[in-house]
Amino acid sequence: MASDLPLTKENILDAAEQVLRRYGPDKTSVVDVARVLKVSHGTIYRHYPSKAALREAVTERWLHTLSDPLEAIARQTGGSELQRLRHWYDTLIQSKRRYAVEDAEMFAMYAAVSAKPIPIITEHIRAMNEQIASIIRRGMDSGEMAAGDPVTTARALFNATSYFHHPAHAAEWENGEIDRCFDEVWTLLCRGLQASS
Amino acid sequence: MASDLPLTKENILDAAEQVLRRYGPDKTSVVDVARVLKVSHGTIYRHYPSKAALREAVTERWLHTLSDPLEAIARQTGGSELQRLRHWYDTLIQSKRRYAVEDAEMFAMYAAVSAKPIPIITEHIRAMNEQIASIIRRGMDSGEMAAGDPVTTARALFNATSYFHHPAHAAEWENGEIDRCFDEVWTLLCRGLQASS
Repeated sequence: MASDLPLTKENILDAAEQVLRRYGPDKTSVVDVARVLKVSHGTIYRHYPSKAALREAVTERWLHTLSDPLEAIARQTGGSELQRLRHWYDTLIQSKRRYAVEDAEMFAMYAAVSAKPIPIITEHIRAMNEQIASIIRRGMDSGEMAAGDPVTTARALFNATSYFHHPAHAAEWENGEIDRCFDEVWTLLCRGLQASS
Repeated sequence: MASDLPLTKENILDAAEQVLRRYGPDKTSVVDVARVLKVSHGTIYRHYPSKAALREAVTERWLHTLSDPLEAIARQTGGSELQRLRHWYDTLIQSKRRYAVEDAEMFAMYAAVSAKPIPIITEHIRAMNEQIASIIRRGMDSGEMAAGDPVTTARALFNATSYFHHPAHAAEWENGEIDRCFDEVWTLLCRGLQASS
């Protein structure tokens, strides 16, 4: 970029993502990112206090490319909420599998931090759970799902489907039976969602 | 051991487990194991054709210390099958968490191969699924659980609880809310098991 334009956080994240994709998280340094932007590394540090903070900010932005389309689905109304929930899950699972293969560098960065209770992961999981809860809340209100606490039920559902969306299982998604396995889990969970306690 | 005694596979596995615990899987060589047994490495190779085969055999034997007590629970009869299934799960989950902390070297070896479709893992998962299926079959027969295919339902249940027993999630088991999370998933799954389709 031309060095006479003001440097925005977006510019830094664009450059950092480009460098991270090229060299990988271990070999990327703040100096590499500064070089792409033709600024001093001090300029980067004014926006992001450490290499870890920069890497997390890139991962956080990337996670929105995953969660934004899901948010749009969760906000839709009309029709069956169980079908919407299934559509939400199909979109989540297909996106994760596609990223694991086609965007392997960024997916690996995300996978590396996904089991850690760092704020971007905690926040991502909170947002995903809130989306599920909003669908379940409407399903419970309409009587399509049995009465209960939408927040608790959403968390149960999210944890009960980890095998299909948690990046730690990416290698297992290559199993040819994975779609059938999800259908089986989905059938069991739907019965649980519809049955009264 | 005295070198004039016949060398059994158990002797080799005992020595290999001892060496693996001391040096870790990467630094352990067949020569180290042979040295403990005071035999040539050729003697080990006659029983196990590679270092990987030896390591897998040790992991396989270790997995039985996990699955044998579960097998005993699955074979019990009388009383509620849902309660038995819960007891089976509590035992599985507590054992995994204990091993992750107290037997970290062996657990790490198991975790390293757990996502791979190698025979010892495939066989371990098959055995676990069969145990669950045997409990579910009796629960369906007695009418405590809704009618269905025990094998398919067992697989659904095993996959829906991965978060709590798959070694890839070991770091997440340290979360203080993990027991509550399992209770929530269990409540949902039990409703699914009891509800007719």
